[in-house]
Order: sequence, then structure tokens, then C-alpha cells
Amino acid sequence: MSGIAYDDGNIFAKILRGEIPCHRVYEDADTLAFMDVMPQAPGHLLVIPKQPSRNMLDADPAVLAKTIAVVQKLARAAQDAFDADGIYIAQFNEPAAGQTVFHLHFHIVPRHEGEALKPHSGKMEDNEILATNAEKIIGELGN
Amino acid sequence: MSGIAYDDGNIFAKILRGEIPCHRVYEDADTLAFMDVMPQAPGHLLVIPKQPSRNMLDADPAVLAKTIAVVQKLARAAQDAFDADGIYIAQFNEPAAGQTVFHLHFHIVPRHEGEALKPHSGKMEDNEILATNAEKIIGELGN
Repeated sequence: MSGIAYDDGNIFAKILRGEIPCHRVYEDADTLAFMDVMPQAPGHLLVIPKQPSRNMLDADPAVLAKTIAVVQKLARAAQDAFDADGIYIAQFNEPAAGQTVFHLHFHIVPRHEGEALKPHSGKMEDNEILATNAEKIIGELGN
Repeated sequence: MSGIAYDDGNIFAKILRGEIPCHRVYEDADTLAFMDVMPQAPGHLLVIPKQPSRNMLDADPAVLAKTIAVVQKLARAAQDAFDADGIYIAQFNEPAAGQTVFHLHFHIVPRHEGEALKPHSGKMEDNEILATNAEKIIGELGN
């Protein structure tokens, strides 16, 4: 499955090309982070490398190293922004593992004691709530 | 929570010190990988840095970069070893996010279409099955 070619028609490729909007929380030369529009909990965000890869299985290790550094930075920011009791980080490879968009991405989900996660790829969140939550994270990054 | 001190009495610290055994699949100067004794699916393994950190929130970014490279290597090996349809990668920070051992670790779980995951920290797997599954992964690594 790591041999499956990258398809640049995926939604994250469109976000990277600016063809569709996102609630951006962080960007550098190699990496973009934005709110998941179907959050499993408030503050659920995604970190993606700009370089195309289908998932972790075919990713360039150097790109992966840069990406995980941003995952850590955003995990800390999300923890502070949402006063989270914990942070769930997940990365799905192929549909059997839950992958629905075929551009490498890490999920960062703030968790609170006693609050169950909503389903993955569940309900679309209200745009204003996503914008507000993005601002909270951006505030913690000092951007 | 990222300010909680590392406690070297945790079970992975004991594994690193050789005080308790593990079904090892990979080791280098910075990293150890071994079978999860309560697998969520056959082939479920863990990748940990040797340097102490409670989780991703307090990890050294340089260590994290080395660790994720090994996660990728082992994810590919596990995919091949178990002819997996997908690979689920998860990393839990603090109990509210599912963390039960307080030494940074990444879960790598082979997935197959139509086979649900067993619960995290569920039932202890038979030692011989763990040993056999470790050998399958080691075989793919060419060690």
C-alpha cells in the first residue's frame, strides 16, 4: 500500500494550493497546521507537511522530522489554549486504519477527563467556533 | 501537565534498564521498539526513546525526530510482516488521553479491513504469540 501514488486532488492538497480555505493556526516553509472541520473534541487540529506524501509509509524521513517538531509545538499550544487534561495524537495510514484524506496528516486532539471523543470524520463544526478555536491556539503560539 | 516530573519507576524505564524483559524488535543508540503485551491487534508494537521524557509534551525535539524515524521504519516493517491493510499510529499524553505508562511511546498497530481494534490496555497476550509476532517484524527489518 505504500506504493500507491499520491493524488493531488485530495482536500489537503487543495488547501495547500489555496483553492479552498482553512482555519490556519500555524505555517512555516515546510508545514501547515489548521483546524479539523469535523473535530473529535474542541481544538482538534491537523498538522501536515507541504511536501506531498500519501501518509507516513511513503513520507520523506527528513520531512517527517520537521513535521513532528511542529506537532509537538502545536500539541503544547493546544494543551494551553484549551486547558486540556491530555492530548491525543493520531496518524492514520490507509482506510483500514481510518485515513480519509490521502495527504500525510497528524491529528492533535485536546482531551478532558470524562469527555468522550466524538467519532472521527463525524459532524461538520460551525465555522465561527472553528475560527474562535483557531484564535485560541494562535494566541498560545504568540503569532 | 508538561511540568510533571519524569518518574523512572515506570515499566518502560525498567525495560530500558533490563530489569524486566520485553519482546524486542529493534534497538539503536537512541531508540527501542518492542511488542505491546496487551495488543489492540496482532503485531501491535511500541517505539520509545531511551532518553527519559514523560510524553511528547516534555520531550527533547531532537530525540523526537530520531524516534519518529524509527516509528516510520517499524510501521513499514509491521505492514509487511502482517500483510496489513493499514497502520494506526497513536501517541497518548496524560491519562485523559489514554496514557497509562509515563515514558514517551508511540503505538504502531497493524489494521485489517473489517477487524475492530481491541481495547487499549486490555488483555495480556500469550508470550509465545508475542515472540512469534516479534520475529515476523524482525524478519522484515532484515535484522
